[in-house]
Amino acid sequence: MTRRDPPLTPVVVAESVADLRSNVVRAHRGGQTIGFVPTMGALHAGHVSLIERARAECDVVVVSIFVNPTQFGPNEDFQRYPRPRELDLKICGDAGADIVFYPTVDDMYPPGYRTFVEVQGLSEILEGAIRPGHFRGVATVVTKLFLLVQADKAYFGQKDYQQQLLIRIMTRELNIPTEIVTCQTLRDPDGLAMSSRNAYLSSAERVQGLCLWRALDGVRKLIEAGERDLAKLQQSLVDVISAIDGVVIDYAVIVDAGTLASLTAAVPEMVALVAIRVGKTRLIDNLVLRLTDRAAG
Amino acid sequence: MTRRDPPLTPVVVAESVADLRSNVVRAHRGGQTIGFVPTMGALHAGHVSLIERARAECDVVVVSIFVNPTQFGPNEDFQRYPRPRELDLKICGDAGADIVFYPTVDDMYPPGYRTFVEVQGLSEILEGAIRPGHFRGVATVVTKLFLLVQADKAYFGQKDYQQQLLIRIMTRELNIPTEIVTCQTLRDPDGLAMSSRNAYLSSAERVQGLCLWRALDGVRKLIEAGERDLAKLQQSLVDVISAIDGVVIDYAVIVDAGTLASLTAAVPEMVALVAIRVGKTRLIDNLVLRLTDRAAG
Repeated sequence: MTRRDPPLTPVVVAESVADLRSNVVRAHRGGQTIGFVPTMGALHAGHVSLIERARAECDVVVVSIFVNPTQFGPNEDFQRYPRPRELDLKICGDAGADIVFYPTVDDMYPPGYRTFVEVQGLSEILEGAIRPGHFRGVATVVTKLFLLVQADKAYFGQKDYQQQLLIRIMTRELNIPTEIVTCQTLRDPDGLAMSSRNAYLSSAERVQGLCLWRALDGVRKLIEAGERDLAKLQQSLVDVISAIDGVVIDYAVIVDAGTLASLTAAVPEMVALVAIRVGKTRLIDNLVLRLTDRAAG
Repeated sequence: MTRRDPPLTPVVVAESVADLRSNVVRAHRGGQTIGFVPTMGALHAGHVSLIERARAECDVVVVSIFVNPTQFGPNEDFQRYPRPRELDLKICGDAGADIVFYPTVDDMYPPGYRTFVEVQGLSEILEGAIRPGHFRGVATVVTKLFLLVQADKAYFGQKDYQQQLLIRIMTRELNIPTEIVTCQTLRDPDGLAMSSRNAYLSSAERVQGLCLWRALDGVRKLIEAGERDLAKLQQSLVDVISAIDGVVIDYAVIVDAGTLASLTAAVPEMVALVAIRVGKTRLIDNLVLRLTDRAAG
């Protein structure tokens, strides 16, 4: 991450909906474009790359930090999800954010709250099947944030592949005038996809978690070597993960990249999606698999 | 309805989402306020009063005409709902609309459409209990239209009391930056609330339908005369309608005006909601009942 020169003005923290609105209205009146990075905080280099991309492409950069209760299941980690406020604000400022929206749960969901956004089909498979209600919570909070921030562009990481696909569909279908930009997953040097939840991992669990990338990269190499048998690719994905003791597979599949539909044979644009549990921690990762004409021949 | 002098520029008809957007963006760039009247067409004097109110309060007036399939049940009147396009466009122009948004079903719901907005609780009672899925369709299309038109104010008739309440809640909860203005129900001289569906009524059915207003006005008069016993008020409402042969009551209730919750005793702000079937036609009406301190004493 690079700091711009001359030094930035300190980031403005909008603590309420009203605060945020007045900042957004001012930007729009001034004819400025707004880039938006919605996060749950516990920011890492992956988030920083999104903020820097927004900084490069838009006049005003808004980051939201909100651990959204409606996307957590009753037995999930809402309470223990990390909330390092001061560090997060510093990271936002250093990365070039102008405004950080840091609302309370009551501000986003006043008592009696009852309006929800549902994306049918895509919400019930894969992550949605494992985490019932999760994508309804995501769709609802992202709609609310989009309508508050009124951004020209919003930036998401590819690590949450199903989420970014769902948000693209929802944004288009609800006619929200915000362009969705999906950015490459950032990885640590060992290949582990960056995630706020990696902080939960013991060093032994972290080593176990590396099987995700090894499995995905293995499939990529098989395709590069000319393998086109979907069953074999799929089996390779599962085998690499299953070889690791103590890892439970939630799913490990190769599906259509545009719809997440199951496949019976390879198609030009696929995505390998994997989700595992290591101890008490869930980890997900993915890799888009493109068959080039040459390789497919 | 009065025509302004000098004569209006002809209304612009935006036939597609893209058409509408370019008009809306132009208005916003020019710093103009937008007033929005969403309709299903078959416009009557009630709609005209909404358009005229928008004309008086906003710089640019957008009317949408869209018979929304997602708010009709499988056995309802979607196919036969009247669509007098040329007359509707003339009425819009005469009332002072600047832009009429007249999309196709495919433009609003492209094939595979799957994103829906739900307002829990309020969607399942009264009209929602009789018409399952109706309010999900209303909430979804109104959200889409609101995000397309980006209006400062949107105007609804009080005749659809539950609908305007649901839209108020949804707009606030989703953080849609549009103010909801609810306008008085317009009535024919005989008391029948204006409705596009009145066109379905034979003259005999129309006479039967007058029991709605007679029942509502009867309750009002009882309250004016000092009656505060909710059971008696409720009974009067039902009795007046039941007296008419060939009328089927879907509901006839007095509930909390702010929540539509059932009541066991009178409260200061109530609403009487009635829905009946006359032949093949459903008619609804309502009256807000306010207990003044004097009358309540």
